[in-house]
Amino acid sequence: MEDIYFEDIVLGSEQRVGPYEIKEEEMIEFGRNWDPLPIHIDKDFAASHGGLTAPGIFLLAIKMKLLHSLPVQKSVIASAGFDELRFHRPAKAGDMISLLIRWQEKRPSLSKPDRGIVVGRYFLLNGKDDVVLSHLDTVMMRLRPPLARNS
Amino acid sequence: MEDIYFEDIVLGSEQRVGPYEIKEEEMIEFGRNWDPLPIHIDKDFAASHGGLTAPGIFLLAIKMKLLHSLPVQKSVIASAGFDELRFHRPAKAGDMISLLIRWQEKRPSLSKPDRGIVVGRYFLLNGKDDVVLSHLDTVMMRLRPPLARNS
Repeated sequence: MEDIYFEDIVLGSEQRVGPYEIKEEEMIEFGRNWDPLPIHIDKDFAASHGGLTAPGIFLLAIKMKLLHSLPVQKSVIASAGFDELRFHRPAKAGDMISLLIRWQEKRPSLSKPDRGIVVGRYFLLNGKDDVVLSHLDTVMMRLRPPLARNS
Repeated sequence: MEDIYFEDIVLGSEQRVGPYEIKEEEMIEFGRNWDPLPIHIDKDFAASHGGLTAPGIFLLAIKMKLLHSLPVQKSVIASAGFDELRFHRPAKAGDMISLLIRWQEKRPSLSKPDRGIVVGRYFLLNGKDDVVLSHLDTVMMRLRPPLARNS
């Protein structure tokens, strides 16, 4: 896939990448390191509460990994922030997680001509296409550099 | 420290925990796994861009770990979501990251008498007390259980 720059973002369009399978061992290890709530790491406790659930930050990490399936490594400068982040339903080991992005706003930077601001609504979906997590992401993205434009 | 339940959250009060030191090796490994942008993992690239920066999701993972320094494992049910999440400035290896929470809203659940909703504004601070990241967190939290209340 060709590199995606600011010019390539079509408002109203959607992009979907994935899936990434939640592996139980990886999920528990992430929980032990960063979010050791019993519901994320303790199988005995979780057995009477509907089973282990994925830590929210683990889902955000998976979202970021999936985002890297898109060729944006050269263009994305940084995220300015997330809004309206919601954890809609638990995700579990074995779930096949996809990322759907709906691009909904873009504007050139007023101060720096080499970049623009792009806003997308990101949805993490499980294997049944239920929404697990969603948020708005405001991303600073480079315009296509002159050399690439001419090549 | 005694367990913190819904009743213990005092509006307007602040709690601070940490610091947690960002270790370069851990930061790069996290970036390689989940957010392999050059600025997070490639020292040669980063050298001409002000140095490696911590992935945003890594900072959220550190925030979650710091949150576990508070005795809320028995009371926190889940986060409903984050709002107004902003990445204010880069964090780097060696930074000593603290979490400051300002509790700003609480209300009992209308449907479930054993819990309430608590909203806090979370700030991650570096060693100079510059804000690195901030967001609102809306947390479902248990009321103190009757047995503990009597003990």
